[in-house]
Amino acid sequence: MAGTAPASVAYADDRVVAFLDIAPITPGHLLVVPRAHATGLADLDPDLGGHVFRVAQRMAAGLRGSGLRCDGVNLFLADGSAAFQEVFHVHLHVLPRWRGDGFKLGYRAGTPARADLDRQAGDIRAGLDRVALPE
Amino acid sequence: MAGTAPASVAYADDRVVAFLDIAPITPGHLLVVPRAHATGLADLDPDLGGHVFRVAQRMAAGLRGSGLRCDGVNLFLADGSAAFQEVFHVHLHVLPRWRGDGFKLGYRAGTPARADLDRQAGDIRAGLDRVALPE
Repeated sequence: MAGTAPASVAYADDRVVAFLDIAPITPGHLLVVPRAHATGLADLDPDLGGHVFRVAQRMAAGLRGSGLRCDGVNLFLADGSAAFQEVFHVHLHVLPRWRGDGFKLGYRAGTPARADLDRQAGDIRAGLDRVALPE
Repeated sequence: MAGTAPASVAYADDRVVAFLDIAPITPGHLLVVPRAHATGLADLDPDLGGHVFRVAQRMAAGLRGSGLRCDGVNLFLADGSAAFQEVFHVHLHVLPRWRGDGFKLGYRAGTPARADLDRQAGDIRAGLDRVALPE
């Protein structure tokens, strides 16, 4: 990111760079990375965050038009080591997908009662009131 | 989304709604959903996409301040059935995470040569030239 390591750059502008992951889940796996340092979502300027997403949206279109295998796309962001973050400069993964590509999600979905969901929604609304983020 | 189904809403504004997933991967699992219909990334207005991301960023902060268990956050978006999309109105998942929560990613990372990455980057840049997306 400091311009010292080699990178295979698919897109760059004054605020973000998109380059190929060197350990790709599937070929064409991209990282969209803001130039300004932010560790994670909490210290990422929201306007820059919006730009990161818009660029990821464009990269998805670029992948679909690239000739690389790409029947679908996942966007993935890991915020914190408990969420699998390994590089502590925030980045958004753009992952070309196709049936049988070997990528899997493992989980057991819950089946909560509506009352539990309503209580959680209230807890999150209260959490939002406690954080002072720019609009 | 038409206002006819019950939803446990954690956040709403004139452009997006964030509500609890009824089949959560972890408790507090939210979906950030634009009010305007878009199937996926290709037909999502880029400004609206940026707003969806900024709201997801706020929801991550809200979750961390909610009292619900949340040591990290994943953002996840599935664009196309090959990428696990099941509901064909674009939505961004916001997933509270902690070590041992049972959520796993399954994949075998590649170890491509730099020349392969450079060639893929060129293919994607050519793909971007073929798509006409608003800036």
